[in-house]
Amino acid sequence: MVASARVAASLRRAALSSRPSPCIKNIRPALQVRWKTEATTSASSEPLQPDAKGGVKGDPATAKSIKFTSDSYPHIQRESKFAKLTEKHIQYFQELLDSESAVLDGVTKDATEDIEPFNIDWMRKFRGHAQLVLKPSTTEEVSRILKYCNDNMLAVVPQGGNTGLVGGSVPVFDEIVINMQKMNNIRSFDDVSGILVADAGVILEVADNFLAEKQHIFPLDLGAKGSCQIGGNVSTNAGGLRLLRYGSLHGNVLGIEAVLPDGSIIDDLSTLRKNNTGYDMKQLFIGSEGTIGIITAISIQCPRRSPAINVAYFGLESYEHAQKAFRAAKGQLGEILSAFEMMDGRSQKILKEVAGTKLPLEGDHPFYCLVETSGSNTDHDSEKLQNFLEHVMEAEIVSDGVLAESQTQVAELWACRERITECLGHWGGVYKYDLSLPIAQMYELVEDIRDRLTKQGLLGDTNEHPVVDVVGYGHMGDANLHLNVPVRRFDKAVEKSLEPYLYEWTSKRNGSISAEHGLGVSKKPYIGYSKSATMIKLMKQIKNLYDPNGILNPYKYI
Amino acid sequence: MVASARVAASLRRAALSSRPSPCIKNIRPALQVRWKTEATTSASSEPLQPDAKGGVKGDPATAKSIKFTSDSYPHIQRESKFAKLTEKHIQYFQELLDSESAVLDGVTKDATEDIEPFNIDWMRKFRGHAQLVLKPSTTEEVSRILKYCNDNMLAVVPQGGNTGLVGGSVPVFDEIVINMQKMNNIRSFDDVSGILVADAGVILEVADNFLAEKQHIFPLDLGAKGSCQIGGNVSTNAGGLRLLRYGSLHGNVLGIEAVLPDGSIIDDLSTLRKNNTGYDMKQLFIGSEGTIGIITAISIQCPRRSPAINVAYFGLESYEHAQKAFRAAKGQLGEILSAFEMMDGRSQKILKEVAGTKLPLEGDHPFYCLVETSGSNTDHDSEKLQNFLEHVMEAEIVSDGVLAESQTQVAELWACRERITECLGHWGGVYKYDLSLPIAQMYELVEDIRDRLTKQGLLGDTNEHPVVDVVGYGHMGDANLHLNVPVRRFDKAVEKSLEPYLYEWTSKRNGSISAEHGLGVSKKPYIGYSKSATMIKLMKQIKNLYDPNGILNPYKYI
Repeated sequence: MVASARVAASLRRAALSSRPSPCIKNIRPALQVRWKTEATTSASSEPLQPDAKGGVKGDPATAKSIKFTSDSYPHIQRESKFAKLTEKHIQYFQELLDSESAVLDGVTKDATEDIEPFNIDWMRKFRGHAQLVLKPSTTEEVSRILKYCNDNMLAVVPQGGNTGLVGGSVPVFDEIVINMQKMNNIRSFDDVSGILVADAGVILEVADNFLAEKQHIFPLDLGAKGSCQIGGNVSTNAGGLRLLRYGSLHGNVLGIEAVLPDGSIIDDLSTLRKNNTGYDMKQLFIGSEGTIGIITAISIQCPRRSPAINVAYFGLESYEHAQKAFRAAKGQLGEILSAFEMMDGRSQKILKEVAGTKLPLEGDHPFYCLVETSGSNTDHDSEKLQNFLEHVMEAEIVSDGVLAESQTQVAELWACRERITECLGHWGGVYKYDLSLPIAQMYELVEDIRDRLTKQGLLGDTNEHPVVDVVGYGHMGDANLHLNVPVRRFDKAVEKSLEPYLYEWTSKRNGSISAEHGLGVSKKPYIGYSKSATMIKLMKQIKNLYDPNGILNPYKYI
Repeated sequence: MVASARVAASLRRAALSSRPSPCIKNIRPALQVRWKTEATTSASSEPLQPDAKGGVKGDPATAKSIKFTSDSYPHIQRESKFAKLTEKHIQYFQELLDSESAVLDGVTKDATEDIEPFNIDWMRKFRGHAQLVLKPSTTEEVSRILKYCNDNMLAVVPQGGNTGLVGGSVPVFDEIVINMQKMNNIRSFDDVSGILVADAGVILEVADNFLAEKQHIFPLDLGAKGSCQIGGNVSTNAGGLRLLRYGSLHGNVLGIEAVLPDGSIIDDLSTLRKNNTGYDMKQLFIGSEGTIGIITAISIQCPRRSPAINVAYFGLESYEHAQKAFRAAKGQLGEILSAFEMMDGRSQKILKEVAGTKLPLEGDHPFYCLVETSGSNTDHDSEKLQNFLEHVMEAEIVSDGVLAESQTQVAELWACRERITECLGHWGGVYKYDLSLPIAQMYELVEDIRDRLTKQGLLGDTNEHPVVDVVGYGHMGDANLHLNVPVRRFDKAVEKSLEPYLYEWTSKRNGSISAEHGLGVSKKPYIGYSKSATMIKLMKQIKNLYDPNGILNPYKYI
């Protein structure tokens, strides 16, 4: 990565014409100070990290202080049609799996592992009462488990890396957790077609590292890549950072292997880019959040890895300027544009305050953008980027900017976007929203909510105000806004101010109340804001068709 | 488009080192002589062209000589559960639609238009007995028509541009044709997001021309673009020429509006790139060939149009060389590679013989490739292409080649690929197959079939042999082979030699018996070669769920 002095200089020129040195020298490690691990009960403080064996690590005592979902959502009642776990059931599973793969808690003396981490989500916001975690190693085992559960009316929760944000991957009551971590083999890779076939439990980063050795890339990237599993990614239709360039999983996943509640195995693990032989059944499973079957393997087309990656980070005067920069990037960077992220000034200010370190740019800007290019030719990419930078500087679209000139700097600039989430929990908790909106109106909502909470006396600098700030950032290239409300404490008045107001606002603009996070427990009641009664009826038909007993991931989704 | 003399010269060097002038000068209009329109009964002779009003043009007397599908496929019997058209039904439709939109044939004296063109497919291979063609103008009209048909057990065939190759868009018996040509409005286009919303009956080329004015491109291109409709494209999950670059319709279509047999309207016309709120129901309709509902509108994300298009055409020694060229193109052209097509020498020889004009390259080569790049920067693209060309010449991967240097030449080179289909019908008929296979084995099948037919005495130069040749070409970038067997006459012995042998061959290699053409009437019996019994069972469940009376496009698909 090389940033020519000419561009770098011109990049600074408008904002800081008195500064003689090219801006690139001014990049400092953006986030020198590591966040302290704080064991709080807040929803979005330093997240629990899955350990090597899967599950969520953390002080068990702290884990046990987390509120049960059944207490936070008292209107959700355990369905009496589901059986309670008995010795007979346990015996069946223990005969089917080895003792390390059928983990009990508080049911028998055979408990081999604390299962609490499997009951708690990444944000520590949801907590279930599961007493049994099963870790199948083969599709056949998943099939036998599901058939038995279906025959015996035992509810289950499929669980991947447990990194979701809507409580979809942990139980609400005593559902059995089916954790996919032991199904972690890469089955095949063809380096001519770029098609990978792998078990559902392969960790995204493991898959991507494997592909990197073969000069290919997994067409999905997420902050949680070190923990999330590709089966979970597909079953939640994860969006992430590469969607702008490589498209959605609906286009990239070529086949799945999945198990239905009755134990039947869907063997649709096609490795063909084209196959028009009947309804594309696999599509129903992409984004179904484990409610109609458990994905056990996927085949996916992976693009060639781009040898040239460039990242630039800008300060801008207004959201209008950010839109102009996006249009310019689409036009001038064309096929090499691989990400266009927007962060508001408040998100970066919080990053600075919580991290206690300086940001890549000096001074405060109302908005920031991160632009990434990926291409096959370093010189061509640099030239395209140079032209783009000159244009946005000369047209005064951006106020200031830096261009990474090493892998380390690329990572540092990305950290300014990716680590916002972690900082937001600093004050106690966060109300998190993930919305699709028309690009032009995307930030209007953030300002509207900020005004609303301020007028209602809920937002302020002092402790009497529950709300610290209202922050917006997200994947501008996908018109996907992450609206976050960091709070000093969860407060019913704040919740009432936000919901359903914010969903109504989104619905009026034909937006989506969940762009990429999915429905899970937390968004389930609000689906009507994004889908019509006809659509909801059709979805319920599908759920009933595949899971007539309703044993799969109950109390969630739809 | 500029081909530097250096590259052009080097491109010729290996094969024709004595030739002093750059090869680009040697491009001649590839297909000067227009094909004669031959009114034969063959499957793939000069196709009937849809006229301005839709439907298929042609001498009615000729049209009437085409064999009925019910005669060609005598095992298909009309289902007695379907009602026959009565005066009462006709009265209903005439009250609902104006006389130009409810076209009768041989039922009343009110016949306003010959409806035979709506009964016959593009290849003149399938012919139905429909007596009524309905042309709704609104989604509401489609809804009323379907509800009435469903209530009265009247079978229907949804029809777009009628350009399919498997008999899916014409009736088998007396099904009512619902032709979508009057629903042809572009509803909206957003030039920031690139999202187009348009009626199903908009012709693909019309949509693409509209987008061209806005510097965008429809992410699908087909030889039939002047006639096919975008609703038909989506309902058949058309693949075509841009899939390698822009991906499949499953990834690009963002929403659909569709009508179910009971008249209910699916209002899922989302214009959001991301929307994780429930099962992605629209995906079921993409590629369902009008068997579960009628698509009335789509929303689709359209990329920016690339200002730079380059096309090169090569002669190669062997299929192994073609594979090497493909690998080199993927590696060196990277993100600008937009098509990689393979044609065997026989396909180009037939083109030359039938067209009576010289091909872009002199001499015969066993294989040919067409490589297209689309990018945002002409100079960068030319340089990438130059590097690629130098590499494939120096490594002796290609034997000879030309590079287009004008829009006209681009079109001429593309004609060498796109017009093969038309030439193949020259001798009488064609057995056509559209297969997905592992790239390495793709051409092996063509050679195997050629040997087989030769050994069986079915292939030869004289009239006593039914088979003229066995020809292979296709979208190498998508591992999609079009295997064609041009014949002097249709012959049961040829058919028996080809089927099911060819499907078994494909199935053994986990290929698809229909990569992009779909199932329709002709592939319906063979789905078992590409899908398991479990998958077929799941598909039948979907069909029964949406169309319990089976009125939608009966006798086809599944």
